[in-house]
Amino acid sequence: MSTDAAALSFDPCDPVAVAQALIRCPSVTPEDGGALGVLEAALAPLGFVCHRLRFEEEGTAPVDNLYARLGTEGPNFCFAGHTDVVPPGELKGWSIDPFAAEIHNGRLYGRGAVDMKGAVAAFVAAAARHVKAAKETGGAPKGSISLLITGDEEGVAINGTRKVLDWMRANGETLDACVVGEPTNPKALGDMIKIGRRGSMTAFLTVYGAQGHVAYPHLADNPLPRLARMLAAITAEPLDAGTPHFQPSNLELTTIDVGNPAHNVIPALGRATLNIRFNDLHTADTLVAWLRERFDRVGGTYELDHFVSGDSFLTPPGPLTELVAEAAERVTGRRPDYSTTGGTSDARFIKNFCPVVEFGLVGQTMHKVDEHTTLDDLTRLTDIYGEVLRTVFDRIG
Amino acid sequence: MSTDAAALSFDPCDPVAVAQALIRCPSVTPEDGGALGVLEAALAPLGFVCHRLRFEEEGTAPVDNLYARLGTEGPNFCFAGHTDVVPPGELKGWSIDPFAAEIHNGRLYGRGAVDMKGAVAAFVAAAARHVKAAKETGGAPKGSISLLITGDEEGVAINGTRKVLDWMRANGETLDACVVGEPTNPKALGDMIKIGRRGSMTAFLTVYGAQGHVAYPHLADNPLPRLARMLAAITAEPLDAGTPHFQPSNLELTTIDVGNPAHNVIPALGRATLNIRFNDLHTADTLVAWLRERFDRVGGTYELDHFVSGDSFLTPPGPLTELVAEAAERVTGRRPDYSTTGGTSDARFIKNFCPVVEFGLVGQTMHKVDEHTTLDDLTRLTDIYGEVLRTVFDRIG
Ligand SMILES: [Zn+2]
Ligand SMILES: [Zn+2]
Repeated sequence: MSTDAAALSFDPCDPVAVAQALIRCPSVTPEDGGALGVLEAALAPLGFVCHRLRFEEEGTAPVDNLYARLGTEGPNFCFAGHTDVVPPGELKGWSIDPFAAEIHNGRLYGRGAVDMKGAVAAFVAAAARHVKAAKETGGAPKGSISLLITGDEEGVAINGTRKVLDWMRANGETLDACVVGEPTNPKALGDMIKIGRRGSMTAFLTVYGAQGHVAYPHLADNPLPRLARMLAAITAEPLDAGTPHFQPSNLELTTIDVGNPAHNVIPALGRATLNIRFNDLHTADTLVAWLRERFDRVGGTYELDHFVSGDSFLTPPGPLTELVAEAAERVTGRRPDYSTTGGTSDARFIKNFCPVVEFGLVGQTMHKVDEHTTLDDLTRLTDIYGEVLRTVFDRIG
Repeated sequence: MSTDAAALSFDPCDPVAVAQALIRCPSVTPEDGGALGVLEAALAPLGFVCHRLRFEEEGTAPVDNLYARLGTEGPNFCFAGHTDVVPPGELKGWSIDPFAAEIHNGRLYGRGAVDMKGAVAAFVAAAARHVKAAKETGGAPKGSISLLITGDEEGVAINGTRKVLDWMRANGETLDACVVGEPTNPKALGDMIKIGRRGSMTAFLTVYGAQGHVAYPHLADNPLPRLARMLAAITAEPLDAGTPHFQPSNLELTTIDVGNPAHNVIPALGRATLNIRFNDLHTADTLVAWLRERFDRVGGTYELDHFVSGDSFLTPPGPLTELVAEAAERVTGRRPDYSTTGGTSDARFIKNFCPVVEFGLVGQTMHKVDEHTTLDDLTRLTDIYGEVLRTVFDRIG
């Protein structure tokens, strides 16, 4: 689907205007709300070839995604992001309509302002300026610039980036480097580039015994003391002490449930769930072995299931990380830290295709009421992405 | 309420006939089903003064009880029991209608046959024979014989024995010794007299923390590792090693519940429930202190609530225990063990009024399908209770 350029009512070189147009689309995950149409309307006139990709799977909602590429030569530099947003939550908690994109006191308010319609808009504006500058010197941009934008990042992330990458592989599309626009800066623009993320594993433990009456414990086998000892054992010591680029892996018990309402009955089984955020010292297999070793020491019959929602990834400091850090420093005067902290992002899928880092706006208000970015941050992030585009084709490729 | 003696359609000296009349009353707790009327019809003609006592309390069903006394002099020897029964459960599990009181192969079948309409019938028959024997020698029984029969033993036990005892205290009724007719014999009549029971305390632990996201544990405080360590601590060592008449106290975890469905959320609190069956080394206060000592060692914020459904009690071997043991031995040829094992019974209330022991039928089929007693056991238990009545007034008093 290609959108008529005449429909464009904003200047694609103006990140505030693009961000406002995006925020005004109520794209609460997995709804698109017209957001990808706004991007196509901005990108197609610049020469981007737009591929609207709709994926669905049994048990999930269908999701729209966009892969847009300018140029056919390598290297292909990609910006990855999402236009879906988390729900606004309690509307009465907001001072301002979360989908009105109003500006007050130099700030742009709205759901997605920092996570991450603002960053998407900044990259669109940077790309538009980049194309404009190339045209003014009578040429075309070197290499290729692409955008991989999904509507399924805040949701189950099944019909989003992962499937777009599968489609790209099947269609011979390759990437050489990627910046993901997540709001990586804790307090001020230029604070932090994420060069990796920990992996995430959720494990489900069931400890079995034999039901009985509390007055006749010799006829029963209470599984709960073993469950308590197992959970105490795996939370008694850290998984590791961290690595040069990663903080220590961390295990959290998230729930323990037996559901026995009878005060005089010994239950037949007990369940617990735990989540591990792990660094590059571990894989799901080594973690399962670590858990089983401690559970086996307690003994008895138990079952352990798990799923991994993302292995850890790391783009070690090098050309891509330096390039982004230098661009941020030139614009903000701050040298960003390289970090691997925080939750997962779609970079966990992209890392299998090319070096990837994350850099975007300031995350303080993300997922909260009155989410907002300063207009100044939006302008400077556009400049940073512009610096990246200006220098990237000399350094990678 | 006094029942017309003409209504009596069975011989009160025949324990099988009395037991059948009782079993045919569908007195599933807290229903009376006519059971106490059967007893009044049997006892009033023998000279017992019958007090029908109906108690109720907000939130509980009203319950009928009976206090019947023959004689006005001391000592007052009491038989305590209950006519309510547990539900028959799955009717198709029964070979025979649980309320038909049918006799097959020398066995009387029906819900309550051993717990404890059979024993109540045996005592009624023993008392009827005792009165008859006294009359035949031209006199009246010495002292007083009384029956304290409740319809609220298998249920919540709020409107039963406890309130009858309060009523007796308020009305100047005193007891000098008591036998409770619970089915104390594990395998054969004469196996076991219960001379005490452990107490029962249920405790509720809530461990508090601070909710957060598993990726940012430094912003949260997971209560579950502390909960696991607390539960591991209190199940790591026994409460005691037992006492001369009691087995060791025992603690069972009955449930642990958090109810957190989100695998990426650290919960704000976790709860656990435990039950302690405790011997005469403990009271609720010492147990709470024992728990708190171990919880405080783990630390953090927690709440501990508890309720005691019965303190432990013991009637040390002495005149009453000897008298019942000798009666059982004379009839069965077996010398009963003195035991304090098993669950709670109404003896926990009576122990505050007079020495109390428990002796009844064989408990193997109690609360099960096809509950039954042999006719032979019913006859011999009647003989044992008769022996007790014959000798009791010489020994206690
Ligand atoms: Zn995001
Ligand atoms: Zn009973």
